[in-house]
Amino acid sequence: MTSATTDHPDPNDSGRESSAFGIETIRRAAERLRGKINRTPLLESPQLNARVGGRVLVKAESLQITGSFKFRGALNAVLALDPDARGRGLITYSAGNHGQGIAAAARQADTSAVVVMPRHTPRNKIERCEWWGAEVVLFDPATESRGAVTDRLIAERGLTFVAPFDDYEVMSGQGTVGLEIAEQLAELEIVPDRLATSISGGGLASGSIEALRATHPGLPLTLVESQAAQKWQRSFDTGTPVVLTSVPPTISDGIAGPAAGVRCFAALRQQPPAVVHVSDDEVLTAIGVAFDTLRLVLEPAGAATIAATLAGKIDVAGRTTVLVASGGNVDPQIFTAAIA
Amino acid sequence: MTSATTDHPDPNDSGRESSAFGIETIRRAAERLRGKINRTPLLESPQLNARVGGRVLVKAESLQITGSFKFRGALNAVLALDPDARGRGLITYSAGNHGQGIAAAARQADTSAVVVMPRHTPRNKIERCEWWGAEVVLFDPATESRGAVTDRLIAERGLTFVAPFDDYEVMSGQGTVGLEIAEQLAELEIVPDRLATSISGGGLASGSIEALRATHPGLPLTLVESQAAQKWQRSFDTGTPVVLTSVPPTISDGIAGPAAGVRCFAALRQQPPAVVHVSDDEVLTAIGVAFDTLRLVLEPAGAATIAATLAGKIDVAGRTTVLVASGGNVDPQIFTAAIA
Repeated sequence: MTSATTDHPDPNDSGRESSAFGIETIRRAAERLRGKINRTPLLESPQLNARVGGRVLVKAESLQITGSFKFRGALNAVLALDPDARGRGLITYSAGNHGQGIAAAARQADTSAVVVMPRHTPRNKIERCEWWGAEVVLFDPATESRGAVTDRLIAERGLTFVAPFDDYEVMSGQGTVGLEIAEQLAELEIVPDRLATSISGGGLASGSIEALRATHPGLPLTLVESQAAQKWQRSFDTGTPVVLTSVPPTISDGIAGPAAGVRCFAALRQQPPAVVHVSDDEVLTAIGVAFDTLRLVLEPAGAATIAATLAGKIDVAGRTTVLVASGGNVDPQIFTAAIA
Repeated sequence: MTSATTDHPDPNDSGRESSAFGIETIRRAAERLRGKINRTPLLESPQLNARVGGRVLVKAESLQITGSFKFRGALNAVLALDPDARGRGLITYSAGNHGQGIAAAARQADTSAVVVMPRHTPRNKIERCEWWGAEVVLFDPATESRGAVTDRLIAERGLTFVAPFDDYEVMSGQGTVGLEIAEQLAELEIVPDRLATSISGGGLASGSIEALRATHPGLPLTLVESQAAQKWQRSFDTGTPVVLTSVPPTISDGIAGPAAGVRCFAALRQQPPAVVHVSDDEVLTAIGVAFDTLRLVLEPAGAATIAATLAGKIDVAGRTTVLVASGGNVDPQIFTAAIA
């Protein structure tokens, strides 16, 4: 079994039904998730359109259960496990939205979950996992690695690891965001000129882009990452997924992971999207604009695509652009500062 | 012609195609509005469910264009006008969401709009109407009535009045909220036990309830009004629509109008819903809970149904209840106080 200490554990070792990834696995994920997730809206604001000089449609994953797209991938991965693997209980590491996603998925699937988190994690993030019934195990990053802690718990308790992004079922679950976007565009009879999504490990981006390729082949694509954690342009340039050795402090924690996923990279490299970067200041401005024009609550990572658009880093003038707003789990103090 | 100074002008005098109201006029409204409004989501939060001990589905009209359901009724009424009446330009009075709705509808329908507002109206509300291209005419409530100002402008300029609620086409447009709820419930295969909606003049409530009657006859209903402006229980009790002589100050301005609509009353009285009241404190709490559990931005009136549920004024225990959250145009300072 591949060690959970890497960012790229092999999902074939976790009792998955399938290791394939593509439009069929995404459609299967949509079937599994039907009625268990919120169908999030594709929203438009004439004020935002006027501000950026083009038509912008915002896929509001902040309104997903657990407050981010992460619940889709987590629940799909958990439901795709064979009953034995699922019944042994789940484990993952996450300081943020994936932990909540797994905690909620475990409850849905009637099993248990352990979430491994650094001990400086804010209390409210710990409580959000515990609310779902998950056990949170804290560790000291100065003396231990999350992987070592996770491996020890797997060895001791026989738990099943669910990776945060580099897993075909997780990627397929996130791909249902793209599937819904395609359905909603068809209902509205809109043909988009571009899709932009935020990216960190790559589960959301690879899944959503794969889903949209089926209905919108050749659609221009933009990935938005944090200035603090630039991985993807260099991954495409060098032909290998980058793992950063350190990431400076940033409020955009949802897009500040150190690693580009191996499987996500393989899915994205065939037709590499444009890559742009946003600063924390740009993201704060975007949170305020989204409150004002869309009445959305967005977290920094969730506002990244709007931030890139407002900053002129995505050319939306006179075009129709779909922006994925990935989540809304924002610290009330950051939100208050952004809307002041 | 009935004077606009009453709260109940006759829509037959405004060049309407029809003065009927029912499921057919609501369906016609949905056809007119197709592709021109946001299809707002029906959201669920397990955290909110746990908190109230029942299943709660929130229809998030805060995500509608202009930030409230008002755009639906305004646009339907404007599109239903004959081209002559529409071409003369529109006028209405409103210190809030209906003004924005008419301003936005006029722009959609390629005509002009005048919005009559008290001169103490907050600058941002004035600017939101002006943003859409409307002319805002301020008056001094100490020396003039809104109706007199409106009548004078109609006489001078030949403008077409669009009433805020007591108009069959406005009611039909608001009824598309109920139509969408019925569609969304069918998609989710959910049978509700109750619908609760906030109410002031009655356009949203009468329209939505009429729409839901078609698919869910006999569905128990609750109307939620502000403690500061209690009109509906007394209207049902006395058999006549109440007009309050004064309304004390309240943050819940969206449900603080003085009058129950005559046509709205006629539509609702046949099967009078339960009526409950919420205080400003209860509403503030609900804004914070909606931020925390649903990542929604709600204005006080928009949080009224959630407030009534949290306060135990709607019996949701063990049941499935649909709550209409009517709007999200909240003052940032009130919002900040609520989420602190």
